[in-house]
Amino acid sequence: MMKTFTRQHINDLEQRYRARLINCLSGFKSANLLGTQDSDGNLNLAIVSSVVHLGANPPLVGLIMRPNTVVRHSFENMVETGVFTINQVSSEFWQAAHQTSARYPKSQSEFDAVGLTPEYIDDFGAPYVAESQLKYGVSLREIKHIDANNTEFVIAEIEQIHVNKTAISEDGYLDVESLGTVAVSGLDSYHVTQRLSRLSYAKPDQPADHLDVSGERIETMPENVTRLNQG
Amino acid sequence: MMKTFTRQHINDLEQRYRARLINCLSGFKSANLLGTQDSDGNLNLAIVSSVVHLGANPPLVGLIMRPNTVVRHSFENMVETGVFTINQVSSEFWQAAHQTSARYPKSQSEFDAVGLTPEYIDDFGAPYVAESQLKYGVSLREIKHIDANNTEFVIAEIEQIHVNKTAISEDGYLDVESLGTVAVSGLDSYHVTQRLSRLSYAKPDQPADHLDVSGERIETMPENVTRLNQG
Repeated sequence: MMKTFTRQHINDLEQRYRARLINCLSGFKSANLLGTQDSDGNLNLAIVSSVVHLGANPPLVGLIMRPNTVVRHSFENMVETGVFTINQVSSEFWQAAHQTSARYPKSQSEFDAVGLTPEYIDDFGAPYVAESQLKYGVSLREIKHIDANNTEFVIAEIEQIHVNKTAISEDGYLDVESLGTVAVSGLDSYHVTQRLSRLSYAKPDQPADHLDVSGERIETMPENVTRLNQG
Repeated sequence: MMKTFTRQHINDLEQRYRARLINCLSGFKSANLLGTQDSDGNLNLAIVSSVVHLGANPPLVGLIMRPNTVVRHSFENMVETGVFTINQVSSEFWQAAHQTSARYPKSQSEFDAVGLTPEYIDDFGAPYVAESQLKYGVSLREIKHIDANNTEFVIAEIEQIHVNKTAISEDGYLDVESLGTVAVSGLDSYHVTQRLSRLSYAKPDQPADHLDVSGERIETMPENVTRLNQG
């Protein structure tokens, strides 16, 4: 049984109820910790769920920032230094990662507050999370202001990647599930995953093949799986 | 054991290897089908993994489009009509959803090609996916061109929401896991999820509580869970 929320109904919802509801609409979201520091070397760590793939060549990611919220120190630091790190959150430290969203004063390092370990790699100018098994250093490329709700779309370029070797497949796919990478739904729900399958590049009039984690074909999908209603 | 990819190493990677690798960096991504039609009533359906939450008031979502790729018909249709639908992909039809990424001619409806059912609700001007248990109609609000790689960041406003009643929690959280909503990693890997927990709003010097799916507190987290290294 489906329930419909009209726009008027959405507008009339209690504010926190609406925030929880609307935050669930996009589906599963990535969980990443942003590692930054200011020019005095004060460290900051903040969990975000809005990191999105932008392109592979040049290698780019994007994320949404709300500068007047708890992530304002991260935003100030990335503008000040031009660099930051993005660290995937795993089931080994998801609760500590969530705790970084508390409103600590700027002088308080969230690394210390929640017990995660800052790590510097190859002289990159922002701290990584030592516990993270997939992380990368990025440089700020562009900030686009979104007038509709005064948020910022941050575009960053990937400068270096550090990943546990066990996750690297022959064809370049990274098995983030094997690293325990978590997904987020809504504002506060954390999930581990179980792979259904990888699928081959889709072509018209030809069902995709199942691929194993290394990208090898393992079976051809039956025709009726991709044509559900055409018995 | 960690492996490092320097920027030079990334630049030198074979193109498809790089695309697979970089697509994994953001972590788990949402799986959604965009439902559109042109002004002649030709339907289009396209899977995307870049839908992100933008804000709850006004209710906004964003997504990245590459207009010169297989999603160009969707992009043209949303510009032409100003509206589209976003339909969460579940484990009931993930393979059919993947198949929409094949390069069908514009005159061919992907609904027909993959066997999903177009559905019109409340006179909204774009087709929904009947099989989807969480879907919403949006109006195009703004398109921001990203110079760095000639992609478009599409900002859309949520006009109506349709969700299976069983997924609605008392506090507004939608249990997308109970709907079988899938997550994507990389270009082609699909995953179902298992909830670790919901967590209460984080406050400094106070560990977050575990919440059940309806938002009720079920236990206080032990102090050492959020302060991993401060025995």
